Formats: sequence, C-alpha cells, structure tokens
Amino acid sequence: MSKQTDDFFKNIISHAKEYGFVFPSSEIYDGLSAVYDYGQMGSELKNNLKTYWWKSMVQLHENIVGIDAAIFMHPTTWKASGHVDGFNDPMIDNKDSKKRYRADQLIEDKIDRYEKDGKTEKAAQLQKDLDDAITADDLVRLKAIIEEHNIVCPISGTKNWTDVRQFNLMFATQMGAMAEEAEKVYLRPETAQGIFVNFLNVQKTGRMKIPFGIAQIGKAFRNEVIARQFIMRMREFEQMELQFFIRPGTEMEWYEKWKATRLKWHLALGADATKYRYHDHVKPAHYANAAVDIEYQFPFGFKEVEGIHSRTDFDLKQHQEYSKKKMQYFDPEINQNYVPYVVETSIGLDRLFLTVLANCLVEEDLSTEEKKDSRIVLKFHPAIAPVKAAVLPLTKKDGLPDKAREIMTKLKLDFNIQYDEKDAIGKRYRRQDAIGTPFCITVDYQTLEDNTVTIRHRDSMAQERVPAADLRNIIGELVSWNNLLEQLV
Amino acid sequence: MSKQTDDFFKNIISHAKEYGFVFPSSEIYDGLSAVYDYGQMGSELKNNLKTYWWKSMVQLHENIVGIDAAIFMHPTTWKASGHVDGFNDPMIDNKDSKKRYRADQLIEDKIDRYEKDGKTEKAAQLQKDLDDAITADDLVRLKAIIEEHNIVCPISGTKNWTDVRQFNLMFATQMGAMAEEAEKVYLRPETAQGIFVNFLNVQKTGRMKIPFGIAQIGKAFRNEVIARQFIMRMREFEQMELQFFIRPGTEMEWYEKWKATRLKWHLALGADATKYRYHDHVKPAHYANAAVDIEYQFPFGFKEVEGIHSRTDFDLKQHQEYSKKKMQYFDPEINQNYVPYVVETSIGLDRLFLTVLANCLVEEDLSTEEKKDSRIVLKFHPAIAPVKAAVLPLTKKDGLPDKAREIMTKLKLDFNIQYDEKDAIGKRYRRQDAIGTPFCITVDYQTLEDNTVTIRHRDSMAQERVPAADLRNIIGELVSWNNLLEQLV
Repeated sequence: MSKQTDDFFKNIISHAKEYGFVFPSSEIYDGLSAVYDYGQMGSELKNNLKTYWWKSMVQLHENIVGIDAAIFMHPTTWKASGHVDGFNDPMIDNKDSKKRYRADQLIEDKIDRYEKDGKTEKAAQLQKDLDDAITADDLVRLKAIIEEHNIVCPISGTKNWTDVRQFNLMFATQMGAMAEEAEKVYLRPETAQGIFVNFLNVQKTGRMKIPFGIAQIGKAFRNEVIARQFIMRMREFEQMELQFFIRPGTEMEWYEKWKATRLKWHLALGADATKYRYHDHVKPAHYANAAVDIEYQFPFGFKEVEGIHSRTDFDLKQHQEYSKKKMQYFDPEINQNYVPYVVETSIGLDRLFLTVLANCLVEEDLSTEEKKDSRIVLKFHPAIAPVKAAVLPLTKKDGLPDKAREIMTKLKLDFNIQYDEKDAIGKRYRRQDAIGTPFCITVDYQTLEDNTVTIRHRDSMAQERVPAADLRNIIGELVSWNNLLEQLV
Repeated sequence: MSKQTDDFFKNIISHAKEYGFVFPSSEIYDGLSAVYDYGQMGSELKNNLKTYWWKSMVQLHENIVGIDAAIFMHPTTWKASGHVDGFNDPMIDNKDSKKRYRADQLIEDKIDRYEKDGKTEKAAQLQKDLDDAITADDLVRLKAIIEEHNIVCPISGTKNWTDVRQFNLMFATQMGAMAEEAEKVYLRPETAQGIFVNFLNVQKTGRMKIPFGIAQIGKAFRNEVIARQFIMRMREFEQMELQFFIRPGTEMEWYEKWKATRLKWHLALGADATKYRYHDHVKPAHYANAAVDIEYQFPFGFKEVEGIHSRTDFDLKQHQEYSKKKMQYFDPEINQNYVPYVVETSIGLDRLFLTVLANCLVEEDLSTEEKKDSRIVLKFHPAIAPVKAAVLPLTKKDGLPDKAREIMTKLKLDFNIQYDEKDAIGKRYRRQDAIGTPFCITVDYQTLEDNTVTIRHRDSMAQERVPAADLRNIIGELVSWNNLLEQLV
C-alpha cells in the first residue's frame, strides 16, 4: 500500500469514528479485536443499505421472498453443510514462544519478504508451492515448506515448530442447562444454511414456483485468526444473501443473469464503474460449479464485496441425506420431481458499507485567489444518506428558531431531519457535508415575510429559494427509493 | 388456561406456521428447543415493527439517535454490569434421574397443584415462602422448601436431590485461536450495555445535550432453562431498547413521561385498550429505583411486553469503575459535571410480534340464512401489514393477466405487492385475508374498457371502483407510516 492510499484509508477510519459511523467495540475497555459498533450515523447508513437491498430483491421480484432465520441452528446443519469437518484454517505453534499462527499466513509473509528483496522468481515459486499444498489440503507439506524456507517465529526467532493442525473457524457454545443434555451448538458461520433448511417450509406455505428465491439479511460469525483491515474482515459480521432455486440445467443462464443484475445494483449507488470488476474463480469451492466475485478497488487493492455462486444441488442434497426429508420440488411444467439447483448471491454488508464510505468520501479544494479553503464531504446517494435534510435558522434570534422548528415538525414525520442553530451558517453546512446530508434548509428573515426558504444542495453547493410548503414534495422526490429502484427494472 | 384460550393459542401457532410467519428453527432436524425462524410473512411483519419503533423513537425525536453495537462485547462489560456474578437461575439435580430443574419452577408447579386441589391457603403460603427465599437469594431455604413439601422428580419420582446451585444464563464462547490467549466472551444477554459503553462516543461525536437518548434494536441471548410458550421466551431473541440520559433528580418526571409515551405507542397499532395494563414492580431490580411493565393479555394471561425502568446512574458508574474512564457529562445549564441518570424502555420484539398476532387474528362468522360461512383474517394496521396489496385478474384469459401485471409493475416500486391468478376470486380474497393484506385490487373486463379497478377492503370487505392511475396515491395514503406516527406527536 502506497503512502497516499494508506493515508486515504486512515482518513476513512478516522472520519468514520469522528462523525459517529463506526466505533471500535467496547472501546472504553480498549476494544475487542476485529469487532466494531455502528454509531449514530453508521446505524442509519447500514439500515438504509439493508433497505435498498431488501426492496431491490424482495419488493421488486414477484418470485423472491425473505426470511429471518435464527443464528442458532440444529448442530446437524453444520455436519451436512460440511462446516464441522471442513471449515478450518491450518495452524502451527512455536514451542518456544507458545504462539500460534496460521501456517499459510506465515508463508504469505515470507513471499512478501522475497518480493521486497527483489527475489521475484523465488516468490512466485513459493506462491505456487503454497497454492498446491492448500488445494491438496496437505498439512505435512505446509510444515515442510515452512522448514525449507527457514521461516522463524516473529516472537522467539526460532524454528521450533509443532505440526500443522486444522483449527475450526466456528464459534461454539453450550445450549441448555441439563447436565448431561447440554448440546454443543454453533454460531452460524454463514446465513445461507438458514435458507436451505427452510426451503420446504417456504416453498409450500408461500406456494412458490420454480424459479424462485429466498432472501435473508443477518449476522454470521467466524473465529478468524487474522482479522484485520477495519471492518473488512470481522469476527462478527452481517450478510445479505439470496438463494435462487432453479431447474437443473438452467444454472449457467441464471448465474449470468444474477452476475449482471448484482453489478448493476452496486453501480446504481453512483460509484465510478472503473472501481468494480469481476474476478472469476478458477477453482470454485467444493459445493459450486461456477463462482465469481464482484470486487471493489479499495485503497489496499481490489477485494471481494459480493460473490455469485452456482451452488448446484449440493446443499439441498446434503440436508436430504442428513435429515431424511425429501428436499424435492415437483415441477408441473415438465411433470418431474427434482432437487433444485441453486444460484447464490452473497454480499458482506460491512464491506459494502466500507465501499460506500470509500466511494463517497471526498476532500474538495475550494480555494480562491484570495483564500485557501477545502471541505470534506460524504457524497452519499440521497436515498441512503443517514440524515435527509438539516433545518438551520440563519440566526438564533428574532423568531427564526421558532420558524425553523415549525418547518422541522412538519418534515420529521417523513424524513430523518437534524436541527442545528449553533455556529455560523457556513460551519453548519460543513458539518452536514461531513455526515453526507444532501440538503440544508435555511430559514432567514425573508422566510418570516413570504414563507420561503433556501435549499442548499450538498454536491453543487448551489442554493435555490422555494416555498416552505413545497419542501415535503421536493425532498420526498429527491430522496425517494424509486431513484435507485427505477435503475434496476 | 381454559380450553377455549388454549385452543386460541394453538390456532395462533398453527396459523403462524401455515402462512409463513413463524417456523420452528431447523425443523427438518426436528427443531432446536426455544429457537424459531421467521418465514416469508413473519420477516416482513417483524421488519415493519422495527421500522415503526425506529421511526417513532429516532426520527420523531430530535434528541434521540440510534446505534447498532455488536453482539460480542469485551468480557469486562459483563463484570461491570453484574451479569457474570448475578445473572443466575437456581438449579437442582435429582440424583436418580440425573435430571436438572429450576428449583423455583419445581416449587411453582407445586403451588399450581395445590391450587388445582383447592388448597388455596397452602398455595398462598408457599408462594410467599418462595418469594421470600428468592428475594433473599437463599439457596438453602429453597432446598428446604422442596423437601418440606415433598416435591419429587417428575421422572424418577424420588426426593433424592442435590443442593441448589446457581447456573449462569449467559452463553459463553472462546474468541481467538491463540492457544493461551483465547478469551472467554459472552453472547450479550441484553442490548442495553452496548449503549452504555458507547455513551461517551455518541455524546461527543453526536454533540448530544442532556436530556438525550440512544436507541438500539438487536439480538440478545439467554440460556433459559425453562423456555416455553412459543416465541414468548426464546433462547435467542430480539430487543428494542432506548436508554434516555437525564439530569439526576429528574428521573421520576421522565419515567412517567416514557411510561405514558410507550403505552400510547402500543395502542396506536389499533389494539383494544382493555388488553393492556401497567404492572408496577414493588421491588425493582438492584439497578433501578422504579420499574413498571406494560402487560398484554395473552391467551395465557397478562404478561410483560415492555419494561420501563429508572436505572439511576448504576450502569454508567459501574463502567466508570471498571474502565477507569470518566462517564460524565458537563451540563452547561447548571455548570456541573455529573454521571447522568437513565430511564430505559425495553421491549421484546418477539413478544410484540406475538401480541400483534394475538390482537389481529380474528375468525369471523359470515353465515347467511342460506349458507354457513366464516373467514380467518389478520387485521393488521395497514402500515405494518407484510403485503400491502394483491393484484388479481378476475380470470386467467382475455388479456386480464397482462393488464394486471402492467398495474403491478407500476406499484411494486412503492409497495410490497402480490400477484395471484389461481383459483376463484373469492378464494384468493380469503388467502389475502389470512396473511393480512389490507387491499385487493381486482382487474376485470371493465378495466380493459375504462382503466378502472376495484379495491376490496380487508376489514369491511367493501369494494369501490377507482381509476387505476390513482392507485399509487390511494394506497400510498392508506398504508403511510404517518397514520401511525401522527398519533404520537
């Protein structure tokens, strides 16, 4: 990461904290590693991103419905899904320092060092060896690589390593108080399985016909060993997933359709299209026959924001085997029973939140010949902005605050509005810029005469004079969800 | 519970399942005790209840903001709050059956039996003894009561009991992979502490002035020993909480204000006011100096739906002590620093969901002299109904479905709409009644001529003919959040 991009990323993090978007969790106790809280602005932005996704998925699609399954699921779910046996990271302990590391991460660090030292060929060869060992799930080979390349513990500096062992990434807990019956349950590591186990219930009670989808927003938990980069990789995070159930043989058609649909969804928020790209998986996971990431160019490089996966009938068949319940659908059009195929779209809400911050945070130079000046502004699409408008009396006297509150009282039934009378008007505009409020409504002396106000637009900083009575309609149209949703139909 | 009310409760549960409101969690694996999933209708209703609460708390109040804190918190949080030491149930084991029970629950069951046997005086005395032992936290006395009243294990039938011991209700898990450093963390048993630990961050970055509030909606977890009554008492549940920070000495005034405000909020949904009552706590919890429940008359009796608690400065002071951070506010009006007092309103979202179902589920007798008839209808307030309108072509032919879809396409940007062309129109009306859809829009032959449709109103079953072009405005006004929010300002 270059100095400049590094600084930009630091700016995002500090702006996010300073203006109440994201706080480190339990900060008064010095925080909890890789866990964050959303503040007064962050919770609004996050809610708006959820609403945008839910409306675009469920409301716009006649054949998609939502569910809200619990975080706790029957433990057999994770046997069937493969998570109990296969959701692991390879770990190695140093016997001198007693520290534990991810084996692949130690090797990645070595590759970085080779590259920094100009040993490009050696780095490439080691990367290939690592990839081969990971693909083959070969723990013995991982240890051998660590020894061959003289990788030492960063703490003790020694090569006194244990064998490489698998470490499961699911958080486990005990449910129930009955001494002998307490059951080991997991915090779900993905929301997808909550949809699969409810497939029959939703299909039958919702009278759904294939093709149809089930959408869900919810928390998931992974005991990441290396959790870093702010809210990019957290131990507690939120997913927004669609599982779309289809007739076997039609999966590539739907896969392509969802791939296009989901990119369009991101771009509708107003982002620079060159910052997004597709990244095809050459070797998809065991449950998929095709997979692609939608990547966003973060300050630290292109990273996955959303994945589209053709999951075949893997999950439903596994649940069929473990539950002995028929996970089948009778297709009246072809007069056949089958286990449906699935195309999944899976987005990390916290990462999406970070893309939106990175996309929208701008420092603008407003210098004139006389004076240096700049402003920091969050150029959110108005539909997702935490605060829709601020009502500002020009001064604190002569009845302007009363008039401003009268206007505010009418608007607050429809919109999230702030009132601010402190400091000079220019300073108040800048405060609203910094939290991304698209419109500032200023109440001045003319308002007392003719009941008009000025609307100051965040991005252009242009002001226009409008009747106060028209505000509800004007703002209503500018912040309407339809401005986003119309781009998708 | 009488036979009649028992049947009504069973009807609610079966209706909730049959129409996609609530499913047992992981049902294909025979469910997970005291955990439920919200289906395609339930997730919409639950989302709408959240939106109603959030709008009424955050949007309507200039001095209330929201946050969204993580479920994982620093473990010291729960030392400070008292949950590590005090959040326990008294448990007792039977040595023969090896079963574990809640000691107080065993005694409660005995009281019930005395009452059924007409031994009213004995029941009252035992209730008093139990209350005294619980208040004194006297585990020895609890065991003595069990022995004195010859309470036997329902499984083994013996009185071979262990001592009574405390069992902590928090779910614990291990965070981090470092062998020696893995930290025991808890799933939060209440959302309130997420607000308290963020008090300083929100107050400072949000420039909040006392009195002000912080609102939050989120999951909480309690390893309940006796979890029962459908979604009334679940191990994973959702809370909607407001912590309102005030100047010490003003707490009773705010307590009374929030008590009134919150009851009004419930009644705005259209419920029968006689089904709600206040229940004052004679002995509030250790952190409170006044507490009241808003109770709803469920089929199984009056039960708490929401609590309003005057929490004093207990929590902030505890966190101040444990974190060594000053949890203080400088009040410019009186030129003083102090630890604020807190009035809390805390509602169980799942219980609220159940009150709404219980309130709205009606079986109506529609019999005429010629024919017996009835319908089951969910009379949700239109603003919270999962589906706002159904578009129904009278028949499947002559271009009526095309016309219906044309109308639907225009409406779906604004509302959650269903389309249904299967079965006779009367049957389709009943299906929409059963999920609480307030409006059915029927497209008939006249629609093709003059572009008018009929709107059939769920509750009155009255039909009116309107221009299709007016539908967006007509439905928009009828389902508007303002119809609820205007009752609160």
